[in-house]
Amino acid sequence: MISAPSPVLYTDHYELTMVQAALADGTADRACVFEVFARRLPNGRRYGVVAGIGRLLDHLAGFRFHEEQLEYLSRAEVVDERTLAWLADYRFTGDIDGYTEGELYFPGSPILTVTGSFAECVLLETLALSVLNFDCAIAGAAARMVTAARGRPIIEMGSRRAHEEGAVAAARAAYLAGFSVTSNLQAGLRYGIPTAGTSAHAYTLLHDSEPEAFASQVASLGTDTTLLVDTYDITEGIRRAIATAGPNLRAIRIDSGDLHVLGQQSRELLDSLGAVDTKIVVSGDLDEYAIASLAATPVDIYGAGTAVVTGSGAPTAGLVYKLVEVDGRPVVKRSENKATVGGRKTAVRRHKPTGTAVEEVVVSQGAPEPQPHDRLLQRPLVRAGERVEGLPDLTEARDHLRECLISIPWEGLKLSQGDPAIPVLMR
Amino acid sequence: MISAPSPVLYTDHYELTMVQAALADGTADRACVFEVFARRLPNGRRYGVVAGIGRLLDHLAGFRFHEEQLEYLSRAEVVDERTLAWLADYRFTGDIDGYTEGELYFPGSPILTVTGSFAECVLLETLALSVLNFDCAIAGAAARMVTAARGRPIIEMGSRRAHEEGAVAAARAAYLAGFSVTSNLQAGLRYGIPTAGTSAHAYTLLHDSEPEAFASQVASLGTDTTLLVDTYDITEGIRRAIATAGPNLRAIRIDSGDLHVLGQQSRELLDSLGAVDTKIVVSGDLDEYAIASLAATPVDIYGAGTAVVTGSGAPTAGLVYKLVEVDGRPVVKRSENKATVGGRKTAVRRHKPTGTAVEEVVVSQGAPEPQPHDRLLQRPLVRAGERVEGLPDLTEARDHLRECLISIPWEGLKLSQGDPAIPVLMR
Repeated sequence: MISAPSPVLYTDHYELTMVQAALADGTADRACVFEVFARRLPNGRRYGVVAGIGRLLDHLAGFRFHEEQLEYLSRAEVVDERTLAWLADYRFTGDIDGYTEGELYFPGSPILTVTGSFAECVLLETLALSVLNFDCAIAGAAARMVTAARGRPIIEMGSRRAHEEGAVAAARAAYLAGFSVTSNLQAGLRYGIPTAGTSAHAYTLLHDSEPEAFASQVASLGTDTTLLVDTYDITEGIRRAIATAGPNLRAIRIDSGDLHVLGQQSRELLDSLGAVDTKIVVSGDLDEYAIASLAATPVDIYGAGTAVVTGSGAPTAGLVYKLVEVDGRPVVKRSENKATVGGRKTAVRRHKPTGTAVEEVVVSQGAPEPQPHDRLLQRPLVRAGERVEGLPDLTEARDHLRECLISIPWEGLKLSQGDPAIPVLMR
Repeated sequence: MISAPSPVLYTDHYELTMVQAALADGTADRACVFEVFARRLPNGRRYGVVAGIGRLLDHLAGFRFHEEQLEYLSRAEVVDERTLAWLADYRFTGDIDGYTEGELYFPGSPILTVTGSFAECVLLETLALSVLNFDCAIAGAAARMVTAARGRPIIEMGSRRAHEEGAVAAARAAYLAGFSVTSNLQAGLRYGIPTAGTSAHAYTLLHDSEPEAFASQVASLGTDTTLLVDTYDITEGIRRAIATAGPNLRAIRIDSGDLHVLGQQSRELLDSLGAVDTKIVVSGDLDEYAIASLAATPVDIYGAGTAVVTGSGAPTAGLVYKLVEVDGRPVVKRSENKATVGGRKTAVRRHKPTGTAVEEVVVSQGAPEPQPHDRLLQRPLVRAGERVEGLPDLTEARDHLRECLISIPWEGLKLSQGDPAIPVLMR
């Protein structure tokens, strides 16, 4: 078994060589501001969802170099002795401000602002981007599925299509975005997310017949279970399910075929068998578009897998971590797109009196002129290296996202490609 | 910091409920064979690359339920007391056969065959698929990039665009596929993969001028380093780089712009400055197609990031884990595609006397008739729960893949969409 991972080497080699060179020439201590932002949203999406902040802060709390890592860096000659000594004492002592989880973001939104010495901030680049790029990608896709589901619950069941640890983070991000439960048990243990699952086709095939498999499942799990009815013939499967479990069976699941047609037929059949309260769960390569297409089909619960854990066509959020200020002076790469602005940013979202969001205003090196119905988007996350108390937990982040999605103009919730739901004005 | 992950809960909830029901009705002990295979290759790819077997066997060695997991499963009422007691004693005691890392696969290839009791095998479904789906997706994309690079080295630098642990697995899979080095330090520590990296744009912006940044980097890292020359003006950057480091500078890196034009101009300029041995590293959203388009450009080393760690359009390999045999009887879901065949498989790849692969023959419940130039594709990986000695290490897998890619018909190496490089005959 692999040893417990330490987050310090979730780091690109060049961050350590930069620290070495900066320690040698004295620039390592320059006061710097790094910023995480998206240049654009993927695939014509209309909003991004901030996710992963909590995971990043969890990692930051343990971001110390121990013997195993230092010994490796020495042996592999990644950096010199002076740098190794500096790393051995390393802890992040700076400040981090940022959007909280569940907040929406748009191109240019200063999602995270990391303040400290060059050396201490540059070390966090890869870790911050890995966590935020993955989690935001999943949450952004998942939120669109939740909108498409129009209030019907969605089960996250994509673990098998993602890296095993990525799957746990994906379950968390999908729950944050409004999914109801996950199949991933590690996510249940680590984050307290409700888990669910009953049986696979293998369970039916294991038995000598489908009725025997159903009887076995009901005997052990009760009628408050979901019977998978499409191993052989779906109509026959539904009849057998109700014959076995009775009309109080909680749910049947259909994992293949034309889900619209099968959903309608299955509902009629269940009703004719008196199983009027038995739910229909549908799964099988559902993405936001497939879910939307089932809006008028009498099904009750969606299971989403591959599409959600791979970001539904956008497996990374494309966030970048850029140095924007050195010793109080704004800096910017000359070859950048003109939209890129140096300097520490402050961001507010402006709303109509009705609560509808109108625009996001991002001001470099100053603060936006206050207006009624403004909401300041960044809040302190870390002060002098310590996590600030009272940050939103996963449930609060989930609630916050639901409110944010209500606040954007209705066009912003469309699944089709388009412009960001609200403009970002860089001042 | 998060506690050390145990692999046992990289598992879908339904696997445990199936174990519970099967323990109750006595089917848990039925002798089963599960098989991992791909129904199709993604995006018209012509071959798949087996990767992740080593990581899976690492996880399997530690696949035991400890107090933390059992307490959670009890508290969350995932399974009953009897099942908890069974899990507490769980260790996999069955056999696993499979393709080794670096082997090619095609639709229907029996990549992994897991043999044991139903309960002990079904528990491994999600873990096996998570590891193999992720690693094969990355290796499959990376191998195409290596082919496109035509012998030029490629640096894997995509960690920031992947989940932080996914990034480590991606670095391993890319190295297996023929990448030369990775930027990911955890991959260096864990797998002994060579790492590389020098500096980012932030390092130039940190300093008062580009010459100061270059001088600092060379002072600390020597001339055997790579100077990033596109922070301001590339031509000026190259002149400054050589002025600072002299003509023995190892390399310059260009991360933006038209890499074909800039590559040509940079080569001419470097040569005119006497830096005829200074290499040109190019990076910036390179995928297999962008790399192929630079074949005639005088650049030396590619840096690939986002595209490789996200599988270049196919972020999961789509492998499935299916029950194919119960107590010696082949089983198959009736609604399956007709190409799906029950029963334990044996697979051979047939070759011409020249060594060119012709076809893969997969036989259910038997063995293919031996022919000259056959190669048996599965080998024992686990016997009675213990990893078999002498399995190929990462370097051997890398060498094996190189040989396999030489063996397939040349059309199989084309980047365009097409049929699998060789047919798979199901007998």
